[in-house]
Amino acid sequence: MDESMKKLDAFFNPCSVAVVGATKKIDKAGHVIFKNFATNKLRGVFKGDLYPVNPGEDSILGFKCYPTIKQIPFDVDFIVVIVPAKVVPSIMEEAASKKVKAAVIVSAGFKEVGNKELEEKVIAAAKKGGIRVLGPNCLGIYYSKTGVDSLFLPETKVLTTGEDVIATPRPMPGDIAMLTQSGAFGVAALDYLTGRQMGVSKFVSFGNKCDVTDYEIFNYLLHDEETRVILSYVEDIKHGREFLNVAKKVTAEKPVVVIKAGKSEAGARAARSHTGAIAGSDKIYEAAFEQAGIIRARDMEEFFDAGKVLAMQPPALGNNIGILTDAGGPGVMTVDELEIQGLTVEPFSKETIQKFDQLKADGVILRIAATHNPVDLTGSVTDEQFVTSVDLMFQDPEVDGIIFLGLHHMPGLREKYIDDVAKVACKYRKPLVMCDIGETEMALYTRSRFDRLGIPSYSSPEDAARSMRALVKYGTYLQRTGAAEEYIKGFLQRKNWH
Amino acid sequence: MDESMKKLDAFFNPCSVAVVGATKKIDKAGHVIFKNFATNKLRGVFKGDLYPVNPGEDSILGFKCYPTIKQIPFDVDFIVVIVPAKVVPSIMEEAASKKVKAAVIVSAGFKEVGNKELEEKVIAAAKKGGIRVLGPNCLGIYYSKTGVDSLFLPETKVLTTGEDVIATPRPMPGDIAMLTQSGAFGVAALDYLTGRQMGVSKFVSFGNKCDVTDYEIFNYLLHDEETRVILSYVEDIKHGREFLNVAKKVTAEKPVVVIKAGKSEAGARAARSHTGAIAGSDKIYEAAFEQAGIIRARDMEEFFDAGKVLAMQPPALGNNIGILTDAGGPGVMTVDELEIQGLTVEPFSKETIQKFDQLKADGVILRIAATHNPVDLTGSVTDEQFVTSVDLMFQDPEVDGIIFLGLHHMPGLREKYIDDVAKVACKYRKPLVMCDIGETEMALYTRSRFDRLGIPSYSSPEDAARSMRALVKYGTYLQRTGAAEEYIKGFLQRKNWH
Repeated sequence: MDESMKKLDAFFNPCSVAVVGATKKIDKAGHVIFKNFATNKLRGVFKGDLYPVNPGEDSILGFKCYPTIKQIPFDVDFIVVIVPAKVVPSIMEEAASKKVKAAVIVSAGFKEVGNKELEEKVIAAAKKGGIRVLGPNCLGIYYSKTGVDSLFLPETKVLTTGEDVIATPRPMPGDIAMLTQSGAFGVAALDYLTGRQMGVSKFVSFGNKCDVTDYEIFNYLLHDEETRVILSYVEDIKHGREFLNVAKKVTAEKPVVVIKAGKSEAGARAARSHTGAIAGSDKIYEAAFEQAGIIRARDMEEFFDAGKVLAMQPPALGNNIGILTDAGGPGVMTVDELEIQGLTVEPFSKETIQKFDQLKADGVILRIAATHNPVDLTGSVTDEQFVTSVDLMFQDPEVDGIIFLGLHHMPGLREKYIDDVAKVACKYRKPLVMCDIGETEMALYTRSRFDRLGIPSYSSPEDAARSMRALVKYGTYLQRTGAAEEYIKGFLQRKNWH
Repeated sequence: MDESMKKLDAFFNPCSVAVVGATKKIDKAGHVIFKNFATNKLRGVFKGDLYPVNPGEDSILGFKCYPTIKQIPFDVDFIVVIVPAKVVPSIMEEAASKKVKAAVIVSAGFKEVGNKELEEKVIAAAKKGGIRVLGPNCLGIYYSKTGVDSLFLPETKVLTTGEDVIATPRPMPGDIAMLTQSGAFGVAALDYLTGRQMGVSKFVSFGNKCDVTDYEIFNYLLHDEETRVILSYVEDIKHGREFLNVAKKVTAEKPVVVIKAGKSEAGARAARSHTGAIAGSDKIYEAAFEQAGIIRARDMEEFFDAGKVLAMQPPALGNNIGILTDAGGPGVMTVDELEIQGLTVEPFSKETIQKFDQLKADGVILRIAATHNPVDLTGSVTDEQFVTSVDLMFQDPEVDGIIFLGLHHMPGLREKYIDDVAKVACKYRKPLVMCDIGETEMALYTRSRFDRLGIPSYSSPEDAARSMRALVKYGTYLQRTGAAEEYIKGFLQRKNWH
């Protein structure tokens, strides 16, 4: 690890942390953040040293409090700063004299509200002292493994009824890195990812990006074994050329999904007053993402859905999709959306059609079933018919991926098909995504069971189709750059498929 | 009610029902359907007479069984037919001699698999006898109020573990009529609507539409006090001219949302082998829907979201939207999506801007808050700030509707703003939709509480924006046809707003 990487590493693996602006007032950000670290230290998750800094307190939550950073008689790697904006430059100067490596500046009131000069003072002090800065106007870092948690939003909230409810949960460990320029979108993402049982490797909130920017964190994550997929909410990207270079290296090994806000004119205006972002021409971003093999999501749902599918399934090495369904209408909806997305649903090869005809002749599947793609086994479907059909479809060399619409409602289905279909999928190198429609008991169970078995499930046909598009986009890119074979090999190994 | 309406009414309010093909075999459709009626009769919901018809049984679930319809010694209004396809024509002849008014033919194996002739025989027999037919290849009717339930999918299903789980729930009564050409999409819709607490007035599954078609049911629902919004899944529409005429009458009083499957070439091919639909040019459908004031949904999510918003909020009488948020990023995403949808997010009128400046001067809202639209109260928002701001925005004559991004995560928010914002909305004639992002406790609570208070909530900024588009589309149409004033008057009266 070179020197610059070591400094970035201090954000995630600090030996010692000072929380500047820590306080006993429980409603304050400075309290919540300090308490995060203190709690994680008690739990044994955060193993570093911890120092609250506040001239007005003697101790906080049992930790000895220091009036200034300077007065801490030990080394300090990493600081989290939550003090009024105008005080931040002097804090940075002090931190420099303490040889602090990394700083998260949570405080707002800089460039985003027109205080450019103040922000430049912070940058100058940090540069002089060799401190890497995340923010200002950000949430900073959440990394479950080392207990670094600079989020000022507490996990639970007390209602007026006195009840304690989960408000800003921290997701379980997993292989998705979540990066965000918007703090609010960041906490919303944590809430979403937790609820959908999607694990997070590292969370980074950039805010105004006065120093550490996208491409450096991308580079850090390129070498991070825990991260397999990167999700990034972006309003603007700085250092475009460096970003492109790094992004290309990343996408050869790890899929990247971006949601770019501020794409419309009014949206760009709103972004300006949000993080001070100069959004620039959307076409330039579009071209850059395309060139770097970054998948751009149209909206929030597609953003998370693409992250899920890329974390769970191998990419598709072609754009012809097979559809297996027990529900005619949703089958048609899936075809429609795939075609809109530029994918195809071509009839199967002769061999596959003959095999399906044989299954009909043998009475294995119903004679009235449609078997030319989509395969519609109708409301009379059984568990066995699904399993036999999906296996047969996987074998067709012209099928590059399969969307499985296994609507649980059909009376002949038990839940056996779930595990059996998932087992078949592991025999092949092609992706499978599934959809079941409904919001009550059996639908929720079916989707969550498929997820657990590694088959990403969706609640609408179009969501499934758009997720398949992400796999096709990524697969096409990998093939173009010659990285497909190695990526898939690594993927199958990691997942322990055949 | 004229003669033709009376016959259609027999589908929903029959005095007597015969289930032809009722059986004791519990896995069979003929059992599930008969049991639906029998159970609803025991519950006192279905108040008509009930007759199982099956030559091989003496009685089913305690009801005397008849070998043929003819042998039932009482009048029969309505029959549900679940027998092999080839027997259906003779059943219809018998039914004609019994002066049956309405028949749901659940049986499949007709036009959709190439058996056109057989379907024509059914049509001929029905026509001769004056029987109105829904189907074949359909689920028929669900109407909670009278206990008519011809769905062959049982509400619960037994897992291999022996556990009984909800599989195909029936939604609570409400003001949305759900029509569908696809049975599978129909049951999926019931599952979705139940889980999302959206009430249904009437459910109609058309299948092959050999006789009763869309426009007749539309006409029936036009006069149905219980139905306020119509959701319709369509693969093809028959009798285009009649449909257009009726649809225009309906949309003057009740919003209609359609999802049209088979819009792509491959999708149309899939639809053909599903319900035998000749999908025709998508452009013609697009133009027809536009002309009739029907809102076309792009996908399943938009379909249900539009139904929800139109059932809960008045239409927007212009396309300029105000955005109130505590989350900058999601605010930008909302602006983007609104602009993509052809709506605008213009800066407020001078008066409104002055009022916001005054609020800043008075210390009511933060000086760093953005107040030119979007209004971004930042992570320091309080309940009171939300309430004051939304009230002020409603008063701006250039704001036609408001999207409220009330992300619950911010530490200064208690849940008080939920009820207070909803209360403010009822003072105005403009629509409000809300969004909170997250999938854990507080997010689920916040959205469900807003829903209960009549403010439709969404889990992504883009979903909220697209729902607002549905309100703008409908409002624009009503204004063009001169029906806006009366519609809104009726809406406010029904909802008991000011």
